[in-house]
Amino acid sequence: MPQLGLLPKRAWAALFSQLLRPPPSACTQAVRGHSQVAESVLTSQLKPHQETPNFIIKTPKGTRDFSPQQMVVREKILDVVVSCFKRHGAQGLDTPAFELKEMLTENYGENSGLIYDLKDQGGELLSLRYDLTVPFARYLAMNKLKKMKRYHVGKVWRRESPAIVQGRYREFCQCDFDIAGQFDPMIPDAECLKIICEILSGLQLGNFLIKMPWTDVRHEMVTKKGLAPEVADRIGDYVQCHGGVSLVEQLFQDPRLSQNKQALEGLRDLKLLFEYLTLFGITDKISFDLSLARGLDYYTGVIYEAVLLQTPAQAEEEPLNVGSVAAGGRYDELVAMFDPKGHKVPCVGLSIGVERIFYIVEQRMKALGEKIRATETQVFVATPQKNFLQERLKLIAELWDAGIKAEMPYKNNPKLLSQLHYCENTGIPLVVIIGEQELKEGVVKIRSVASRGEVAVKREDLVTEIQKRLSES
Amino acid sequence: MPQLGLLPKRAWAALFSQLLRPPPSACTQAVRGHSQVAESVLTSQLKPHQETPNFIIKTPKGTRDFSPQQMVVREKILDVVVSCFKRHGAQGLDTPAFELKEMLTENYGENSGLIYDLKDQGGELLSLRYDLTVPFARYLAMNKLKKMKRYHVGKVWRRESPAIVQGRYREFCQCDFDIAGQFDPMIPDAECLKIICEILSGLQLGNFLIKMPWTDVRHEMVTKKGLAPEVADRIGDYVQCHGGVSLVEQLFQDPRLSQNKQALEGLRDLKLLFEYLTLFGITDKISFDLSLARGLDYYTGVIYEAVLLQTPAQAEEEPLNVGSVAAGGRYDELVAMFDPKGHKVPCVGLSIGVERIFYIVEQRMKALGEKIRATETQVFVATPQKNFLQERLKLIAELWDAGIKAEMPYKNNPKLLSQLHYCENTGIPLVVIIGEQELKEGVVKIRSVASRGEVAVKREDLVTEIQKRLSES
Repeated sequence: MPQLGLLPKRAWAALFSQLLRPPPSACTQAVRGHSQVAESVLTSQLKPHQETPNFIIKTPKGTRDFSPQQMVVREKILDVVVSCFKRHGAQGLDTPAFELKEMLTENYGENSGLIYDLKDQGGELLSLRYDLTVPFARYLAMNKLKKMKRYHVGKVWRRESPAIVQGRYREFCQCDFDIAGQFDPMIPDAECLKIICEILSGLQLGNFLIKMPWTDVRHEMVTKKGLAPEVADRIGDYVQCHGGVSLVEQLFQDPRLSQNKQALEGLRDLKLLFEYLTLFGITDKISFDLSLARGLDYYTGVIYEAVLLQTPAQAEEEPLNVGSVAAGGRYDELVAMFDPKGHKVPCVGLSIGVERIFYIVEQRMKALGEKIRATETQVFVATPQKNFLQERLKLIAELWDAGIKAEMPYKNNPKLLSQLHYCENTGIPLVVIIGEQELKEGVVKIRSVASRGEVAVKREDLVTEIQKRLSES
Repeated sequence: MPQLGLLPKRAWAALFSQLLRPPPSACTQAVRGHSQVAESVLTSQLKPHQETPNFIIKTPKGTRDFSPQQMVVREKILDVVVSCFKRHGAQGLDTPAFELKEMLTENYGENSGLIYDLKDQGGELLSLRYDLTVPFARYLAMNKLKKMKRYHVGKVWRRESPAIVQGRYREFCQCDFDIAGQFDPMIPDAECLKIICEILSGLQLGNFLIKMPWTDVRHEMVTKKGLAPEVADRIGDYVQCHGGVSLVEQLFQDPRLSQNKQALEGLRDLKLLFEYLTLFGITDKISFDLSLARGLDYYTGVIYEAVLLQTPAQAEEEPLNVGSVAAGGRYDELVAMFDPKGHKVPCVGLSIGVERIFYIVEQRMKALGEKIRATETQVFVATPQKNFLQERLKLIAELWDAGIKAEMPYKNNPKLLSQLHYCENTGIPLVVIIGEQELKEGVVKIRSVASRGEVAVKREDLVTEIQKRLSES
C-alpha cells in the first residue's frame, strides 16, 4: 500500500475541513517540536518542485552523526567518566552553547580564528563556545563564587581543518573537571591526577602514563628549532629517568636550580605533589617529564598530560598516534579576567579526551568483531497466527506498565519467522508468544531466543515469570 | 596568602626557564581543553589593561546557565523520559548542533526567520538546528533507512523574543521519540500516546489530559476571526463531549461526514486508534478534541497535545499558563524531501516539553521549600587535629578506590567545626574522623551527621563498615 502515507492526510483533511478551520495563530500554543516539521510538509506540498532536494544531503564539514551503536559505546564511556567526577564530590553545571563574542575573542589569543561566530541577525554578537573552561570562569565571576568543584560534559566547536582519520572533529565532546578556590598548595592538583588515573583505569584502555613523550620534543627542538643535539640530550638526561621523586632529587642537585630562590620554591611544590601522589598510590602512573615545560608559557603551575602506552603488537593494530587521552593544569589568573574588580580565583582542572578514547574503543571493538546492541529491549511480543493484534496490544501494555522493556511488530499479521529473526538480529533475549492454542488454554509461551526452548506459563503469571527470568539472566 | 595563586607561577617559570623552552607548536599535541584557557592567561598577562573585562558578564539573551541544583532536577526528569523511550525499544541518536543552512531554510516556512545562522567564515553556510525532527529525517534519507525507532535528547536554538517568565528560551532542550516506517495504520500512533501517558504519570505532575482546551479556540474563532458564536458553539457541541469513542460515534451520524468517502476513511482510522487506546487502558487520559483540527494544514494524520489539569488551588499557586507539556503527530512526507528519489518514509512521533516540565517542578520545589543536594557525596574525611593531611589522603584514596563517594578539605589544618558544618549544609550523611587518639588506637571514628552519634571502628574495617552503613540507609 504505497500511498498509505498519503491517503490518511486527504481523509483527515476532508473529515475536518467539513467542521472547522481554526486560526493558524493557535499553532503558537503547541509544544515546539513537531508543528514546524509539519509545516515543512506543507511547504513541500505547496512547492512540488521542491519534493526532491536541490542540495547534497550531508553533515557539515568536520561533524558527524552518531549511530545508535556508537551512542551505546559513548554512553558507557561517559558513564565511567561522570561516575568518577561524582565520586570526587563534583557538582554538575551547564552553560549555553554560545557566549557573547567579545568574551571569547578576548580569551583565546591566536586561536580566536578557530571560533565559530554566529551571523549578526540583530541583537548581540555571539560565538559558539570553544571549550568549557572559559564558560566556567565566566560563571564563577558572574556569580561571584570563590570556590566550586564542578564537572561539565558538553559539546564545543572549533573551525579546524579536520583530519577525520585522526579522530579530530569541528564539533566534539569535552568532559571537564575543575576545582576553583584558594587552597593549600598541590592538594587539589594531586586529586586531579588521581581522577585521571581512576578514569583511565576504569575504562580499561590498557597501560597509560601521565607524561609527554620526550622524543617528540627533542625531534622538534633539534630539527625544527635547530637546538644543538648535545644540549637537547643534556636536557634529555633528566627527562629519560622516569619516576617522579628520583628526578626531583636530581633537580635539587642541579646548581642551575638550587642557586635560584624561586626555582627552589617551585621544586618544593613539585616534591610536595609527589608526596601526595605517593599517598594516593599512583606514582607508578606519573612520570614527571621536563618536556611538559613547553606549557609553562601558558599555565601558572603544574600541568599534565596522559598518554596510553602501546605494546608493539597494539601499535601494529592501531598505527595512528592517538596522542594524549587526558590533560590539565593550573590556571590561576583566568577568573580575574571576568571579574570587574579583577578578583582572583585559583583554578586547577582536567579534561578527558573522550573523543579519542571513543575512537580507540570503537576501533578495538571493530577489530574484535564485537556486536553492539542498539536497544535494551528485554521481551518481544510475537504471534504465530493472524488477527492477534488486540491480544498483543493488551499484553505488551502490561509489560510496559510493569517496567519491562518490550517491543512488538507494528503489523496486524506479522510472520512468526521474521519476528524470531528480528529478535536474533537485535539480541532480544525473550519472546512472548500468544496464539489461538495459548488463548484457549489461558497461557502464553515464553521462548528463550538463545536456547530456543519454550515454556507455557499461566497468562496471569506472565509478568512475574518474565521478571524472574530477567533477574536470573 | 593572597598571592599564593601568583607565586607558584613565577617559581615554576624560573625553575623551567633554566632548563628548557620548547616550541609552542608542541601545544597542538595537547588534549584540547586546557591549553587554550592557559593561553588566555598569557594574553591577560601580556595585556595588563585587559585584566578586568571591558564588557558586561552575562549569558546571551534568551539563554541561561543551569546551576548544580537545577542540573540535579533536570537529570531526574530526563532519566524518567529516557527510561520510557528505552522501555519502548527506541535507539539513541545524536546529530550535529548545526546543519547545512539550505537544508533548514527549505524546511520551516515562515519560521525560517527564527533560525540562527552561523557567520560566513569561509566554507559551507551553516545554521543551528531548529528542532530534532528535521535532522532525524535528514539522517534517515542520508542513510537510506526505511524504518527506525529512535529517541534524541538535545538542545535546539530559536531566535524568538524570549518571555523568560513563561519558561521560554532561545536555547532549550528537546526530548523526541519517533517511529519511522511503513506500518499498519494507527499502531505506532497509539504507542506514541501510550508513551506520553507513561512519562507524564511517571513524572507525577498531577492529572493531565491529551487534548487541547476548546475555550481557547472558541475565543479566537469568535473574537479574532469573527466567526458567528452560534457556529462556534455548534462545533463546540462535538468538542464538549469528552471521551473519544462516544464522539467518534456522533461523528459517524453527521451527514456532513458520513456522505464523504474520504471523511469516512479518516473516521475509521480514528475509531481504530481509540480501539487501540482502549487496549492500552489509557482512553480516560485521551480526549479527542476537534480543535486539534487546527493542525491539519500541517500534519498528515493524527496529532495530539498533552496538557496538565490544574485544580483551582494549583492555579492559584501556579498562575502562569504552562501550556502543553507534550505534543506530536504524524508527518509522512518529510523524509521524501531529503531523498534524491523522493522516497517516502511515513513517520509519527512525539516531543516532551521538558523545559516547561522542569519549570513546573522547580516552582513546586521552591513552593515546598525542598532543599536539593548538588552532590552525591556519601562520606567526608575530617580531622580534629593539625598535620593529619597525609592520613586523610591515604584514607580517602581507599574510599575512592572502593567506589565510595568521598570529599575532604583541601587544607593542611582545617577546623573540625567548619568541616561538620560543611557536611550539614551539603547533606553529606557520614563523616570519617581521624586524629591522634584514633591513630594511636588503630581506629577511625564514623559519625552520623543526622544523629551526631559516633562509633570507633578498626582502621582496616573502615571500607566494609562504611559500605554496610550506606547499604542500610
